[in-house]
Amino acid sequence: MNAAINVICADRPGMLRDVAGVVANRGGNITYVQSFILERGLNKGRASMYIEIDGPSDGIVEDLQSMQSVFEVTIHQPFERIYGSRVIIIGGGAQVAQVAVGAVNEADRHNLRGERISIDTIPLVGEEAIADAVSAVSRLHRATILVLAGALMGGRITEAVKKLQDVGIPVIALKMAGSVPQVADLVVTDPIQAGTFAVMHVAKTAVFDINRVKGREF
Amino acid sequence: MNAAINVICADRPGMLRDVAGVVANRGGNITYVQSFILERGLNKGRASMYIEIDGPSDGIVEDLQSMQSVFEVTIHQPFERIYGSRVIIIGGGAQVAQVAVGAVNEADRHNLRGERISIDTIPLVGEEAIADAVSAVSRLHRATILVLAGALMGGRITEAVKKLQDVGIPVIALKMAGSVPQVADLVVTDPIQAGTFAVMHVAKTAVFDINRVKGREF
Repeated sequence: MNAAINVICADRPGMLRDVAGVVANRGGNITYVQSFILERGLNKGRASMYIEIDGPSDGIVEDLQSMQSVFEVTIHQPFERIYGSRVIIIGGGAQVAQVAVGAVNEADRHNLRGERISIDTIPLVGEEAIADAVSAVSRLHRATILVLAGALMGGRITEAVKKLQDVGIPVIALKMAGSVPQVADLVVTDPIQAGTFAVMHVAKTAVFDINRVKGREF
Repeated sequence: MNAAINVICADRPGMLRDVAGVVANRGGNITYVQSFILERGLNKGRASMYIEIDGPSDGIVEDLQSMQSVFEVTIHQPFERIYGSRVIIIGGGAQVAQVAVGAVNEADRHNLRGERISIDTIPLVGEEAIADAVSAVSRLHRATILVLAGALMGGRITEAVKKLQDVGIPVIALKMAGSVPQVADLVVTDPIQAGTFAVMHVAKTAVFDINRVKGREF
């Protein structure tokens, strides 16, 4: 990653094509982009486009600044260096909260030594809602591992877990009813321990490798 | 939002411009995009581009499928309906974990009634690291409110808080040393209560409005 740039620009069809075109014309490769419409504050109604570029980036900022629909161009550190890898926790409220306690405390210990690990959670109930959220993890930037925290999960959720594993994201499940524990990479009884394991898998400063305990139960 | 599409495609300069060009040619307006390089799994080394489109979307899927560097096109529900609004919590590990407990449990109560509220956390120490993370909240999709959980925050962090408030994201601070509590929208002593307040501000099913208690301490 050579450059991380944020552009505040007009919300109009073709805007992303034009901004991406400026980068491509200079030979830059966009390795990450996130763009959304601002719903509040000073730039309400405008688009915020955040771009990380690999390869040549000379002249890109100047080219962007000279565009008519561009209002502001700022330079930043990449998200990877600010928020780092993400541990995702999905499931019932009380259990999600306890997994988060374990994961946040473990991430704190690694972040103190210079790592960057985030813990992102959503409390959800119901097969459909959870299955959709599990599937969507594969579309989240920097998502590295998923913890499913509940008392009963199966059916469509189990299918979504298998697909997530196919795209390289391991899944830890609490010890629970339903078919999810049968396909999970790791089954953990205590929610705090589950959160700790998840962060240890992500952390570069930990020696834990989930593949070496695959299919086991703790 | 009319369509949410995920494209697995080549990682090469100009790819985003080309995909965005297809959408613009059909008159669609991209209201959200996120693209990143897949680091593991079946599609390792390829780019994953997720796009939400407003306006006409007829023919876009077919056009994308006919592109040479596109390997897969799938249709999804928008992130807003899956993960919803995001409460962000930044600060010291033990305190971040307790704010998360309050926020996750409160979000659970609203999500049970059909809302979608996520709780995203990162344990961090140090003025520079926290200030960078606070600034970057303005570049996070669906980030709605920030809770700062620590015992001492000021300096660059306080400046970052003010800028975040300018772009319409309110900030709740724990009762702590330093200048952050002086500029925070709300100061809360108990971390669980701080998490609860943050979610109540976001929730459509709650009657709490942070602007009505602005500058107060609980």
